[in-house]
Amino acid sequence: MAAVDSYRLRYGVGGAFEPPAVWSEVLAQQLAHRSVRSYRPDPVPDDTLTALIAAAQSAPTSGNLQLWSVVAVRDAGRRTRLAKLAGEQDFIAQAPLFLVWLADLARARHITTELGSGTAEAADFVEAALLAFVDVALAAQNASLAAESFGLGTVFVGAIRNHPLDVAAELQLPPNVFPVFGLTVGQPDQLGETSVKPRLPQEAVLHHERYELPPQEPHLRTYEETLDAFYAEAGLPSGWTARVATRFGTIAGLKGREHLREALRVSGFELR
Amino acid sequence: MAAVDSYRLRYGVGGAFEPPAVWSEVLAQQLAHRSVRSYRPDPVPDDTLTALIAAAQSAPTSGNLQLWSVVAVRDAGRRTRLAKLAGEQDFIAQAPLFLVWLADLARARHITTELGSGTAEAADFVEAALLAFVDVALAAQNASLAAESFGLGTVFVGAIRNHPLDVAAELQLPPNVFPVFGLTVGQPDQLGETSVKPRLPQEAVLHHERYELPPQEPHLRTYEETLDAFYAEAGLPSGWTARVATRFGTIAGLKGREHLREALRVSGFELR
Repeated sequence: MAAVDSYRLRYGVGGAFEPPAVWSEVLAQQLAHRSVRSYRPDPVPDDTLTALIAAAQSAPTSGNLQLWSVVAVRDAGRRTRLAKLAGEQDFIAQAPLFLVWLADLARARHITTELGSGTAEAADFVEAALLAFVDVALAAQNASLAAESFGLGTVFVGAIRNHPLDVAAELQLPPNVFPVFGLTVGQPDQLGETSVKPRLPQEAVLHHERYELPPQEPHLRTYEETLDAFYAEAGLPSGWTARVATRFGTIAGLKGREHLREALRVSGFELR
Repeated sequence: MAAVDSYRLRYGVGGAFEPPAVWSEVLAQQLAHRSVRSYRPDPVPDDTLTALIAAAQSAPTSGNLQLWSVVAVRDAGRRTRLAKLAGEQDFIAQAPLFLVWLADLARARHITTELGSGTAEAADFVEAALLAFVDVALAAQNASLAAESFGLGTVFVGAIRNHPLDVAAELQLPPNVFPVFGLTVGQPDQLGETSVKPRLPQEAVLHHERYELPPQEPHLRTYEETLDAFYAEAGLPSGWTARVATRFGTIAGLKGREHLREALRVSGFELR
């Protein structure tokens, strides 16, 4: 696909985006990202998994602390149980590989208490959890993009946080290890049926020198139209802003994740 | 560079890593990642910035909520002030572009209260903050990799969290917008002097079906040796586990970030 078309798909036909004259194979792969929720049963080979984890480990990690781990789930029974825990999303059972990405303070706590004074008090703070959340996201994004570069499809699954303690039990996670999100990986089925989803105009997310909320307003309205055109083509109900409001307007929008703080505390993440 | 050499640099000469027979341009770029903390003054052109933000926006975002924004800082005075706030790290003032990545619940709160019942109560929960932290990290990793694919160097800067409220004031952030990390971008100076840093053996971070801590032990010892060889070559003091223990052993290791929870609360992130 021509560069200009890749950019235009990303911002939608309704947007007034002016594609820049900058290009690379990496950017082409990134712009072409789409979520895949329908998979063929072909297994993901061991060599491919090794390459995905090498990609993940090549991402930056704060202070080289490497505060994450990942569980590769291939067992069909376990995938089915995890699919059930994550909002009955059948594609988790269908995909041959489900990677569960973990914020891992257990390894660092172990190292610290073995070498140090017997405590790891800094690990109780929000900062430690945030380091791990950011580290694991950087890593997983590299893995996802690498998978796409091999012709595989992926989708991130935040719904493992609906019942995080049950997920932790299923994966036998010790204290100080927490499941942040999942990632399904596999050969895409019906490739032609998934589309690149348009994003907000750059003017709504990119600020120069200082942040401003009011100038975002017209761009939010433009986006509502752009996305409504996209939804109409996909046969989906319209209304991006309505979806956002549904997620944040009431506690019910959290779908059980209002208990996340308590689940983190029980798992050793004090968030002091 | 041959694929096998790229993998081997990533895991270090001391590791027993067996490179897989899987390859792509994207993976090559990822494996070659190194932090760049020395920059030439050449500005980053507008077209390049547009491409970096398009890469960032192409990353997955939970429920298409897009809970992040970014401030592009080019002003020399502002970069100098931010460098001072972020642990006196001069390369922030030196790099022509400093991107400050923001967890942004202000846009979603605005949409929700305008459209809904006037409240956005779900945004007070840890889950909302976590969505934003993960979203912004996925986006920034895409931008960083795209920058590297254009021949630019980058490094993530977590130290903006040493004084997050001062950073917020500098960027005029409204409530419900929080600076998570920075990213310097520019033409690398002395390219040959930075090296690919070896990571933990895959066996320490990749688990199959269930998580296990004790089997990681021998791989942590291997890594200590691998990294000591790397540090020796770079003329740096040895001891990865000692560095980890220094970070987590005492509150002093947090370098002021023990106040992060309070700074988040003041900024509207209740973390309920």
